[in-house]
Amino acid sequence: MELHELQTPSLVLDVGRVRRNAARMAERVQRLGADLRPHVKTHKCVEVARLQTAGHRGGITVSTLAEARVFAAQGINDITYAVPIEPGKFDEAVELARACERFALITDDASVPGPLGEAARRGGVTFDVFLKVDCGYHRCGVEPHLPEARAIPRLIRDSPGLRFAGILTHAGHSYHARSHAELLDIARHERDSMRDFAAELRAEGLEVPVVSIGSTPTVTQVDHLEGVDEVRPGNYIFFDAFQAALGSCAFDDCALTVLAAVTHRDRTRRKIILDAGAVALSKDRGAVEFDEMCGYGRVLDLEGRDLGLRVESLSQEHGAMCVPDEKLFDSLCVGARVRVLANHSCLTAAQHSHYHVLESGRIVDRWKIHRGW
Amino acid sequence: MELHELQTPSLVLDVGRVRRNAARMAERVQRLGADLRPHVKTHKCVEVARLQTAGHRGGITVSTLAEARVFAAQGINDITYAVPIEPGKFDEAVELARACERFALITDDASVPGPLGEAARRGGVTFDVFLKVDCGYHRCGVEPHLPEARAIPRLIRDSPGLRFAGILTHAGHSYHARSHAELLDIARHERDSMRDFAAELRAEGLEVPVVSIGSTPTVTQVDHLEGVDEVRPGNYIFFDAFQAALGSCAFDDCALTVLAAVTHRDRTRRKIILDAGAVALSKDRGAVEFDEMCGYGRVLDLEGRDLGLRVESLSQEHGAMCVPDEKLFDSLCVGARVRVLANHSCLTAAQHSHYHVLESGRIVDRWKIHRGW
Repeated sequence: MELHELQTPSLVLDVGRVRRNAARMAERVQRLGADLRPHVKTHKCVEVARLQTAGHRGGITVSTLAEARVFAAQGINDITYAVPIEPGKFDEAVELARACERFALITDDASVPGPLGEAARRGGVTFDVFLKVDCGYHRCGVEPHLPEARAIPRLIRDSPGLRFAGILTHAGHSYHARSHAELLDIARHERDSMRDFAAELRAEGLEVPVVSIGSTPTVTQVDHLEGVDEVRPGNYIFFDAFQAALGSCAFDDCALTVLAAVTHRDRTRRKIILDAGAVALSKDRGAVEFDEMCGYGRVLDLEGRDLGLRVESLSQEHGAMCVPDEKLFDSLCVGARVRVLANHSCLTAAQHSHYHVLESGRIVDRWKIHRGW
Repeated sequence: MELHELQTPSLVLDVGRVRRNAARMAERVQRLGADLRPHVKTHKCVEVARLQTAGHRGGITVSTLAEARVFAAQGINDITYAVPIEPGKFDEAVELARACERFALITDDASVPGPLGEAARRGGVTFDVFLKVDCGYHRCGVEPHLPEARAIPRLIRDSPGLRFAGILTHAGHSYHARSHAELLDIARHERDSMRDFAAELRAEGLEVPVVSIGSTPTVTQVDHLEGVDEVRPGNYIFFDAFQAALGSCAFDDCALTVLAAVTHRDRTRRKIILDAGAVALSKDRGAVEFDEMCGYGRVLDLEGRDLGLRVESLSQEHGAMCVPDEKLFDSLCVGARVRVLANHSCLTAAQHSHYHVLESGRIVDRWKIHRGW
């Protein structure tokens, strides 16, 4: 099928770029001496995960138990669920531990290891459990200087049914870095603070099997990975306008776009409406810290060339853009097709049921996106 | 099943409130002498549509052809597709015209009636086609004073395969009204400008079968509907924090919440993380014009009482809130359940596959949400 024959809106995946992004990151992480455990939350797709883990051990990171179930059923069964586990999910986690070769959880709360260990013993499984560490993002995790940072690993180690898997962090504040120097500082701190914290725990006699770090911006920029065992970037497989603004990639590394049709044009206001609205693109505001005018996505032609336009506002099924150039306005008649390079590929992908796989200008396949929880 | 036994995050629909919202709007529109053609984009759910059309003709409005296909297959087959039709969707529209008792389209572009009529003739169907009018929102539609506003109805009327269905508008700018007086002005203008424009077209010899208007804020506030044949509100069936801020409803009319669990707590920062993130709530920023601190949703307890907290920031699977009160912080341990009343119910619903139907404190059913295009 030709690209322009797809219904609109449709999610389009440039598989050549996915392969290139996968190969580059795999090569980089290998060269830096760590294992790659990609975060599949970005794509939620078995076919993409297979491209992504080629040449690596095959372990993945997930953000939902639904992702874990789907990937485990497809034989990708060395999984870390990288959102802190809470008691309402213990039973499902037991099922997953049975289905997986290895199913690891994370916690940063002293109330969790006891009941989690009981659930594991009742279920006849053993969980690998990481301590989630806060290296400056302050979303989840415990800061290394706090007493809990020493207490929780011991609670895990001493709980039958649990194995202390190591320490894990995510420098999500890298997304808010304002310069390359600041980003590199964050990347080094993510690495060094975890290396140092592991050394302290080890000096106190605790075995720390794995030091796990990673976000796409920090893994892309970090200068070495000594002291780190594995990295868990996710977004790099598609990249997006945000990552390009941040300097993690070039615009032509971005693999995910939404094909959209012009449904309305207002010559007086030089305004054009696309049928890609908030439900097709997500309302992620993107890199507003770098580019106040970033809107909700860059508008490209069918070949992927930037038309210099942005989707400026969204309602449920409408994306609005201003087209000052008269010739360009004239070419965008009702029914014309464009591609929108969204701000945040993880959230855009999560709006859709399938990827339409683009290769050499044609749609060659359709891959399922496993949404839900 | 008890509410607290649901997995998290889950979408919860208070069906008692849905019935009350449906009955109030049906009664109001009947009293004002118009037909109710609810917009099902808010819920995308057959069971909700049946509650909503009870006592009315049963016609609905849709925002996607996927909605049209599902509702038509379930016998709800008097449908207006209220996004301007573009040529890439003509063939699907022909299929829908075959499946429906009545399938109406809208256009505001002079390039559309000719080819649309040809597609209808090739397919052996006749489309009802409305002129989409811009009554001040400036999203889609043609302004009544422009020459196209007179030309397009004639192009429709004169095209074999098409029937001119009338004029249709949506005062979406009502969502940005800053006071009750301004909202009432917009509601009156939506009604009066359409009534006057219909009169002009009729004076010129054009038959205008239907004058169709409506948004939840304007239909909720308008003082009469003389000159209007049908109204198409959608959001009123659930309402949400935005509509409550706008004065369209009370907070206890809001029927849609997301059940979420506490996954992390940071005593130092008095910060709590829920497992309802951007993928569960949507990133709609809500009524920031009225309430800069509205965040991404109000946090309620399981019984629906407002805890006075807001979800302040979102990442994919994390919702963050600040809990200054120590007693409240202590009660929100890891695993505790809360409900988030989202800013914009249409976008929140579109993130989920099902509603969990809450009645008298228990989950009594599970209704499918028909997403996609």
